[in-house]
Amino acid sequence: MKLVFSFGDGKAEGDPTRKDLLGGKGAGLAEMTSLGLPVPPGFTITTEVCRQFTRDGQLAVDLPRQVDEALTQIEARLGMRFGDPSAPLLVSVRSGARASMPGMMDTILNLGLNDETANGLAKRTQNARFALDSYRRFIAMYADVALGVKREHFEAALDEARGRVGKRNGLDATRLNAEELRRKVTDAEIPEAELAHVVTAFKAIVKTQTGKAFPNDPKEQLWGAIRAVFHSWSNHRAVVYRKMHDIPESWGTACNIQSMVFGNLGDTSATGVAFTRDPSSGARTLYGEWLPNAQGEDVVAGIRTPMPLRRQAHLVDPRADHALETRMPEAFAKLVTISAALETHFRDMQDLEFTIQDGTLYMLQCRSAKRTGEAAVRAAVEMVKEKLITREEALLRVDAASLDQLLHPALDPAAPKTLLACGLAASPGAAQGRITFSADEAERLAGQGEAVILVRIETSPEDIHGMSAARGILTARGGMTSHAAVVARGMGKPCVAGTSALHVSYPDQTVIISQYDDNGRKSGQVVLKKGDLITLDGGKGHVYAGALPTVSAELTGEFAELMSWADATRTMKVRANADTPLDARNARGFGAEGIGLCRTEHMFFNESRIRAVREMILADDATARDKALAKLLPEQRNDFAEIFRAMHGLPVTIRLLDPPLHEFLPQEKDQIEELAGLLGVSVAQVERRIKDLHEYNPMLGHRGCRLGITFPEIYAMQVRAIVEAAADVVSEGLVVLPEIMIPLAMTREELVRMRGLVDTVTDEVFASRLPVVFAFGTMIELPRAAVCANELAQVAEFFSFGTNDLTQCTLGLSRDDAGKFLPAYVTSGILAKDPFVTIDRAGVGALVKLAVDGGRSTNPNLKLGICGEHGGDPESIQFFRDQNLDYVSCSPFRVTIARLAAAQAEIRFQRESHAKGSLTPRETHES
Amino acid sequence: MKLVFSFGDGKAEGDPTRKDLLGGKGAGLAEMTSLGLPVPPGFTITTEVCRQFTRDGQLAVDLPRQVDEALTQIEARLGMRFGDPSAPLLVSVRSGARASMPGMMDTILNLGLNDETANGLAKRTQNARFALDSYRRFIAMYADVALGVKREHFEAALDEARGRVGKRNGLDATRLNAEELRRKVTDAEIPEAELAHVVTAFKAIVKTQTGKAFPNDPKEQLWGAIRAVFHSWSNHRAVVYRKMHDIPESWGTACNIQSMVFGNLGDTSATGVAFTRDPSSGARTLYGEWLPNAQGEDVVAGIRTPMPLRRQAHLVDPRADHALETRMPEAFAKLVTISAALETHFRDMQDLEFTIQDGTLYMLQCRSAKRTGEAAVRAAVEMVKEKLITREEALLRVDAASLDQLLHPALDPAAPKTLLACGLAASPGAAQGRITFSADEAERLAGQGEAVILVRIETSPEDIHGMSAARGILTARGGMTSHAAVVARGMGKPCVAGTSALHVSYPDQTVIISQYDDNGRKSGQVVLKKGDLITLDGGKGHVYAGALPTVSAELTGEFAELMSWADATRTMKVRANADTPLDARNARGFGAEGIGLCRTEHMFFNESRIRAVREMILADDATARDKALAKLLPEQRNDFAEIFRAMHGLPVTIRLLDPPLHEFLPQEKDQIEELAGLLGVSVAQVERRIKDLHEYNPMLGHRGCRLGITFPEIYAMQVRAIVEAAADVVSEGLVVLPEIMIPLAMTREELVRMRGLVDTVTDEVFASRLPVVFAFGTMIELPRAAVCANELAQVAEFFSFGTNDLTQCTLGLSRDDAGKFLPAYVTSGILAKDPFVTIDRAGVGALVKLAVDGGRSTNPNLKLGICGEHGGDPESIQFFRDQNLDYVSCSPFRVTIARLAAAQAEIRFQRESHAKGSLTPRETHES
Repeated sequence: MKLVFSFGDGKAEGDPTRKDLLGGKGAGLAEMTSLGLPVPPGFTITTEVCRQFTRDGQLAVDLPRQVDEALTQIEARLGMRFGDPSAPLLVSVRSGARASMPGMMDTILNLGLNDETANGLAKRTQNARFALDSYRRFIAMYADVALGVKREHFEAALDEARGRVGKRNGLDATRLNAEELRRKVTDAEIPEAELAHVVTAFKAIVKTQTGKAFPNDPKEQLWGAIRAVFHSWSNHRAVVYRKMHDIPESWGTACNIQSMVFGNLGDTSATGVAFTRDPSSGARTLYGEWLPNAQGEDVVAGIRTPMPLRRQAHLVDPRADHALETRMPEAFAKLVTISAALETHFRDMQDLEFTIQDGTLYMLQCRSAKRTGEAAVRAAVEMVKEKLITREEALLRVDAASLDQLLHPALDPAAPKTLLACGLAASPGAAQGRITFSADEAERLAGQGEAVILVRIETSPEDIHGMSAARGILTARGGMTSHAAVVARGMGKPCVAGTSALHVSYPDQTVIISQYDDNGRKSGQVVLKKGDLITLDGGKGHVYAGALPTVSAELTGEFAELMSWADATRTMKVRANADTPLDARNARGFGAEGIGLCRTEHMFFNESRIRAVREMILADDATARDKALAKLLPEQRNDFAEIFRAMHGLPVTIRLLDPPLHEFLPQEKDQIEELAGLLGVSVAQVERRIKDLHEYNPMLGHRGCRLGITFPEIYAMQVRAIVEAAADVVSEGLVVLPEIMIPLAMTREELVRMRGLVDTVTDEVFASRLPVVFAFGTMIELPRAAVCANELAQVAEFFSFGTNDLTQCTLGLSRDDAGKFLPAYVTSGILAKDPFVTIDRAGVGALVKLAVDGGRSTNPNLKLGICGEHGGDPESIQFFRDQNLDYVSCSPFRVTIARLAAAQAEIRFQRESHAKGSLTPRETHES
Repeated sequence: MKLVFSFGDGKAEGDPTRKDLLGGKGAGLAEMTSLGLPVPPGFTITTEVCRQFTRDGQLAVDLPRQVDEALTQIEARLGMRFGDPSAPLLVSVRSGARASMPGMMDTILNLGLNDETANGLAKRTQNARFALDSYRRFIAMYADVALGVKREHFEAALDEARGRVGKRNGLDATRLNAEELRRKVTDAEIPEAELAHVVTAFKAIVKTQTGKAFPNDPKEQLWGAIRAVFHSWSNHRAVVYRKMHDIPESWGTACNIQSMVFGNLGDTSATGVAFTRDPSSGARTLYGEWLPNAQGEDVVAGIRTPMPLRRQAHLVDPRADHALETRMPEAFAKLVTISAALETHFRDMQDLEFTIQDGTLYMLQCRSAKRTGEAAVRAAVEMVKEKLITREEALLRVDAASLDQLLHPALDPAAPKTLLACGLAASPGAAQGRITFSADEAERLAGQGEAVILVRIETSPEDIHGMSAARGILTARGGMTSHAAVVARGMGKPCVAGTSALHVSYPDQTVIISQYDDNGRKSGQVVLKKGDLITLDGGKGHVYAGALPTVSAELTGEFAELMSWADATRTMKVRANADTPLDARNARGFGAEGIGLCRTEHMFFNESRIRAVREMILADDATARDKALAKLLPEQRNDFAEIFRAMHGLPVTIRLLDPPLHEFLPQEKDQIEELAGLLGVSVAQVERRIKDLHEYNPMLGHRGCRLGITFPEIYAMQVRAIVEAAADVVSEGLVVLPEIMIPLAMTREELVRMRGLVDTVTDEVFASRLPVVFAFGTMIELPRAAVCANELAQVAEFFSFGTNDLTQCTLGLSRDDAGKFLPAYVTSGILAKDPFVTIDRAGVGALVKLAVDGGRSTNPNLKLGICGEHGGDPESIQFFRDQNLDYVSCSPFRVTIARLAAAQAEIRFQRESHAKGSLTPRETHES
């Protein structure tokens, strides 16, 4: 089998479309070589070798022969030889997976150097300083990557040299810290003699740290580097990165060996990176940075401040003009031409690496550029106008999830930050405020105009008012779909959840934040107290000290244009989960085409209502319950009317009461006493009721329509509120499309009874008010409901998949408890994804499919939607499109993402159907 | 449509096989008429009329015409006329559903009487006393059943008459209570004149109670009675009874109208009931009771003591011989002949009602006789020997569940009892003992030889030692599959669970039992304290005051014979769920063919071990955990070795640790302090760990193989204990067939890792010990596992369905919490059955089927079993046979039931396959 593919002199053995085999870097090098661009010759060892190495722990038997052959080809092309002091060939060794992966070992430069070849290099280039500079760089990089010697040792030795140089230059090195010293004494200022010392010191470090001398044999160096590349595929950082970015373990990485060109050969040499457009704004202008007399690593190392490629228009002092455009105009012109050619060729924004050796430009890498959401949108739309890509391609170019960045204010990237802890990026956006530990206090302080961050071990429905009042929410426990996360996303409020380093003490009103070193060992702690300022970055899951400045993103014209293409492309509707009139108006603003889930219980927590709710729960019989319910009726009716007005002309799905009743009762002694006093019953009575209502597994308890069966008067009140409100709003001349949704249905019979109850109430209401057309349907959130969907569809006119609960039941996984093992399950690959974020296709998805098929077999006009958290996840949206669902419903702030994702899903679905020759006409039952 | 079917004079219009249309009673009457037996003519109104009445609330339009026609036919046959004083036709009106249903309105006799026809009857029979006796009986029965006047009113009036008679006879009636008075003054002693008073008084009662006069018109009486019969189908008692006995609502009842014959026409008349064999023992002898000069109701009313049909052999005083055989030898001889003929005809034991009028025998009912488990077994086996039925029929004749009665000691039926409360019949058998509220105390007292009943709000794994020590368990909460119920059944220990009338106070060490009247209103309470004696009847769910005597059932030879036929018939194996060597030996005694579920964690609660278990849980790292595990290893190994010895030659499936770790930690402050002391850590540390381990939904939490993934060292210890024990026992020359079972698998990947762990440990063990062949498999208890069974079967060699958890997840129903609404769900028909008792075929069953198909599609040799509670439920066993499972596993005490049920399932499966023409050869993979 061919394991090694050479490139050089305008010819590449490898097929540049085979990124799976060559990796992204290898494919780019092959492509650029084929295009006739100036690429130093080299070769790529395929990902297949890595896969085999990972599996068997050893390299393919035939690899040495093929590598030698390829090396010989380079030697022939360049007239140099590996290990030959008279004309030493040096190479770089770099990993390159199919997708860019910063977690892995990246680069070893100048490989092939030892005392002899370094000497030879010095002679050949007549530049001993350059040869020593290259040598010391190589030793440090190789020792770090292939021998496991920490970089700090070499930094320290280099700092000593800098100190000596500084002292000679008259600096008081003892008054400078390392960083200052590095700025004052640049690498270029370290003279040859001092570099010779450094090389000796570096070799001694390797000897001390590894017990062995630094390998002199270039071949030994080469194989050490190749092994290090393949090893690095399995290192911890890489594994974590892959999990985070959905990169399969099985891909493996390729390894690229390329002849060196030198940016550190003097002032006519340089190295740099370039983007074909601005990766931050998307503006169509060559963007990038460079450093003269430097090697690749220096640009990103941050020791020297890199300089811009283009001349800055506003520069007053021309001496300050360090642009490549000014300093090396020829090389710059060539870079501009190549950059344009590559973008046209790849029809996408490129990220380039280049080196200039003695004035000659060499290309070392090209790949599709990472970009911000804003840049992605702008570039995609502009490329359509430049006729570079189609609208469909533009829609596929933008990562739907990245739109989040365009919708939430973000932390000012320039501001200095002190990171305190990392949790889950539960709800995006930045928020600053004073720490408060109770919902009541959050509400009180917010009422006084204070910005507060609500910090809780976790939140519960009782905290809603405090969450609503706070600028952001920080919890110690709970996952991406914990109460805090779900509610925060629903509110469009920043939230960092499941921050395990937090130890919240309510009695002390403090939060202790453990600090960890790079090895995960606890290294200290920070204690914050009530009133301290912190900042959350909900998009990253970061917690910072103090109040950091934010910048608010602007919705550009391109964004609106892209969304209009998305809306024209997608067939699946996008609704929002919205519980209040404010939510509803917000959702409509984001382009929601209806409400897919209005959780009536969220209206119950308002202070004026919770009393009546508790009275209802503590009622001894239906009469007392009716009395309490009568107090809630007008409140609910008003809410519904407001929501209907906000959504006029669009469907509104209202779910009847779902959570177990104990969620509405107080837990604290003083609140219990207060409640008892209010209701005129004994404390013991309240406590007994709370105890009665206690459940071992509330998730599987007395909730959903089980409440409607047991306490029909509660559901009757809610149905009455819905249809009375609808009738009222219709009489105002507005169009109302209410959909009454029964939660947690398990059997057809439950729906029959609930339908009977609904009919009884609506008949009564319509006797005195304008009759309103409404739909009756159910959530599908229990595996049994999915399996028996054909029966449920005899009664339900629509299904809405509650994929949160369906996931919990199907996987036997409580989202509130899974934090102890689920992250490890995902990291170690037992589960490919967090099933609460992206739908588990094999398990939960199979049940969804069963339900879709079963439901439609009974009722071909059944309307199908999904209102779980998965409704805002692009990958899940693809699945829902593939199942021919009529709509997805997600939190208002994810509506935009879902609209784009639905368009992308449609495009992919059509392409796939087309490929299969099975183009199914899309039927939709959504009004 | 024909709604009315006549019978009489040897001819019956109705097809006697159409019990669905005629009901059991109507079919029996038609059959007996066709056989030429002496049956008074009459007619049956079909169940279709009832169904329509229940649905529409009114009787079929054509019914009056058809009833009139049938009535005219009777009149013609008998030469009497309905309402004609000169030759009054009287009829009985009786309900009769397809299955016998004591919950419904039963009988109205003598219908057609009013002042005129009573007078006419007196003249025609020349027996005014008889006519008045019949009249007063009719008024009371009719008023009770059709007019809703309580029986007590009439009893009181009759008692007054008895008082007057008694006084005249010289009794001091004031010193007698009602019951004594009724014994002293029999109905026969009440003279004509007094009966005339009674009739007048009865009519006055009706007037007072209903505000209307008693209906005089026989036709009005007839239609009132017919409506009452059909109404009674829907009364509460009937609905409850149907739910309890799986009788569908849709069956409806028929209504039988039959001309009266009179057992109360004097001393040559009589009434009685007979069984063709002894319904209690099954002995082949006519068995029954009779009363001279009486009507049907008197025999069962209990006022007069009925007399035996047969002469008692041991009677010393011939004057005491009241046997029908002696007193009416001719009628008796005829009854014997008819009885034998009917049994031969129906090929089953019959329950007969007869009346003798003036020496002539009339048959009023025949039906398949209810019988005890013992009688069912004996009769079935004897009938095979009599060549009346085949072995297959004999196997089908015995209700498998009724074998419970043969296996557990029962309360002496003759003992007087004070019923305190009713709960769920969670585990059969009778137990008496002193109340104790804590497991520790139960253990202590039992150690002192005291018989104790453990009374808990509910039990948890921490109570196991107390449950084991107690004679019986009584809980206030929890269903048929609550911890208490499951463990008690596993131990073969009587248990009454979910006794909602109990209010247990641990601080007061009392249990308050609320008392309710017939209408469900609280009528009082009983307070019992620690040390009070109570008796449980776990087979009925009854709690009695004091210590009642028990009788232990004997296993007769017929029982053993029947079971041998069952074993020869069934193809599905029956294993037991057994956690200890004792359980294992017990199970083998009951005929278990292996252990299908050995729950290793039950071994963890022993006092010497729980400390090590807690030490392990509190360990900070794997090293500390290993130290604690090392203490558990020898203990587990010993247990396994003992179990392997007990089950030599049979497979033993051992499930690795399943419950969440918090179940093993103490909850009480003092225990926590003790534990902290023992382990040398702070109380706060223990408390923090307990808090850390707290879960919102432990059912869906960190348990099952999730523990094995997170703490591989725990599973490694268990696997080591299993294979080391197996190797040791094999070296003793015994055959060991261990099956290692992974709980709560969700993904194939989990099994891959667990298999890897098992292989690592076994490779190590087998390096120094005899290698042992073992199987590796998984429980299927999550819906995802069922859906992805094809993937799991790539790794698992066997599946065992954990239908308890599968039911919980599929239905989203926590068995610990469902008590609040599940009973109502079953009673009101939302669920046909308690899904924790009988498998929910449509939901859970569909997933089982998916898993069977998926698993076998991957691995045709996959061994399939089920070890949930459903493994002991006959109806569920049928389902498992239909799915071609290899075995069921149930608690030891249900093994016998399961063996018979598996035989019955096999017969039905073969018959059905034969009927479908799709006889599938049975493949079994069980060794």
